[in-house]
Amino acid sequence: MFIARVRGNVVSSQKVETMTGRKLLIVEPLRVDEKAGSMRGTTKCFVAVDSLGAGTDDLVLVSQGSSARMTSQTEKSPVDCVVIGIIDTVFADSAEVYRKGENAKPQVS
Amino acid sequence: MFIARVRGNVVSSQKVETMTGRKLLIVEPLRVDEKAGSMRGTTKCFVAVDSLGAGTDDLVLVSQGSSARMTSQTEKSPVDCVVIGIIDTVFADSAEVYRKGENAKPQVS
Amino acid sequence: MFIARVRGNVVSSQKVETMTGRKLLIVEPLRVDEKAGSMRGTTKCFVAVDSLGAGTDDLVLVSQGSSARMTSQTEKSPVDCVVIGIIDTVFADSAEVYRKGENAKPQVS
Amino acid sequence: MFIARVRGNVVSSQKVETMTGRKLLIVEPLRVDEKAGSMRGTTKCFVAVDSLGAGTDDLVLVSQGSSARMTSQTEKSPVDCVVIGIIDTVFADSAEVYRKGENAKPQVS
Amino acid sequence: MFIARVRGNVVSSQKVETMTGRKLLIVEPLRVDEKAGSMRGTTKCFVAVDSLGAGTDDLVLVSQGSSARMTSQTEKSPVDCVVIGIIDTVFADSAEVYRKGENAKPQVS
Repeated sequence: MFIARVRGNVVSSQKVETMTGRKLLIVEPLRVDEKAGSMRGTTKCFVAVDSLGAGTDDLVLVSQGSSARMTSQTEKSPVDCVVIGIIDTVFADSAEVYRKGENAKPQVS
Repeated sequence: MFIARVRGNVVSSQKVETMTGRKLLIVEPLRVDEKAGSMRGTTKCFVAVDSLGAGTDDLVLVSQGSSARMTSQTEKSPVDCVVIGIIDTVFADSAEVYRKGENAKPQVS
Repeated sequence: MFIARVRGNVVSSQKVETMTGRKLLIVEPLRVDEKAGSMRGTTKCFVAVDSLGAGTDDLVLVSQGSSARMTSQTEKSPVDCVVIGIIDTVFADSAEVYRKGENAKPQVS
Repeated sequence: MFIARVRGNVVSSQKVETMTGRKLLIVEPLRVDEKAGSMRGTTKCFVAVDSLGAGTDDLVLVSQGSSARMTSQTEKSPVDCVVIGIIDTVFADSAEVYRKGENAKPQVS
Repeated sequence: MFIARVRGNVVSSQKVETMTGRKLLIVEPLRVDEKAGSMRGTTKCFVAVDSLGAGTDDLVLVSQGSSARMTSQTEKSPVDCVVIGIIDTVFADSAEVYRKGENAKPQVS
């Protein structure tokens, strides 16, 4: 899995039938910046199915590949990327580098 | 999944039998360019099976790996990349960065 | 899938039993070079099983992962990369950037 | 698999049900630095499920993809990354480049 | 699959039960260097299960993902990387760029 920040969403009306009703989020994988003690963006861009109600700028846990089909929302569908958790806190290098809701702490340095 | 732009197609007459009749698109993954408020090309290049009728310069949603075999067109075939949706709109960083059919808005900055 | 150029082959006499008799090609993934209107090498290097008789400098369509086991030659074997087609033509950015047999058009810019 | 260093952990209370009770570690893949005779960080960042009790700065062996579901802790869950061993020693280029517990030898050059 | 050079090994005593008795090699993927007519290191670093008895500096053929579980040694275990052959010769760009046992020819330029 990887940590990602929700940046937006995608709308597609013409799609494979089994994708109907799926919420599609744009997520950017993050790294832990050792020097800044914060999370840093990678500029990469994935689209993940979300059933947890994640909002913009939330940090989420994303699973890929065949494992992305191991949820009730995604089984038997052509989904290779899914949000499996909304992140509360990230601890790294002996420090708290992210806490949900604390806007004073920037998520991306 | 990832967002990609359709750049062309591939023709192969000598191929594995189960690939007969499959439309093969050349797609380039895109990223969201935070500063320009638009999509940006990555210069990477994949070949995806398409059954939705996507055209050149359309933005499409692409699924990879074993999940690419979870459509009626691709099941049991050696396909690891498939178009699962044609994208109408992309919202990112609180702005609409793509709307299908609006040629004034460049897809690749 | 991706487009690749055949660069050579690998011989291995001491191998897992189910790999006996498999032809192993060295393939280099290519990208479409937008400016040159041709294919460009990536310097990456994969080894793919081939049952179609692809020759050196041919452009081939390569499938990866579990999908690489979905051919009669590769099922139930530890193969994660297979040639599923020999490419006749590549169209991209409104131009023909490759046609098999036309040596005047370089495959790699 | 790859060698990684444990850098921290992630807490998520709102998650897919099958993820309840799973310990989520932040791990950074390492490379062998040929010149320094030590391990070097890659700055990449994954989240792996751990059932072995790995601690901060431990070097661990990480498996990805569908293989990550082949443990009693992870089967049938949407997990694509798991710790399958805590590393005692790493030998590379005819030298011991890591031994667990020897703090004098830096893990990351 | 990819071509890799064996650089060393990893020892882990505290591990998932199904990994007991598996030999764990450190392998570095190689590329074909077009100009030098030899193999070139990538500095990347994987850990692969080996049942063929590959030694240091041997060139091996490595398979990844679910296909890595398609050997008698690795089935049903959390292994995503396995040695499936020891390489005798590599031909590329109309030349022999590697032959096992010929020490005069450097494997990494």
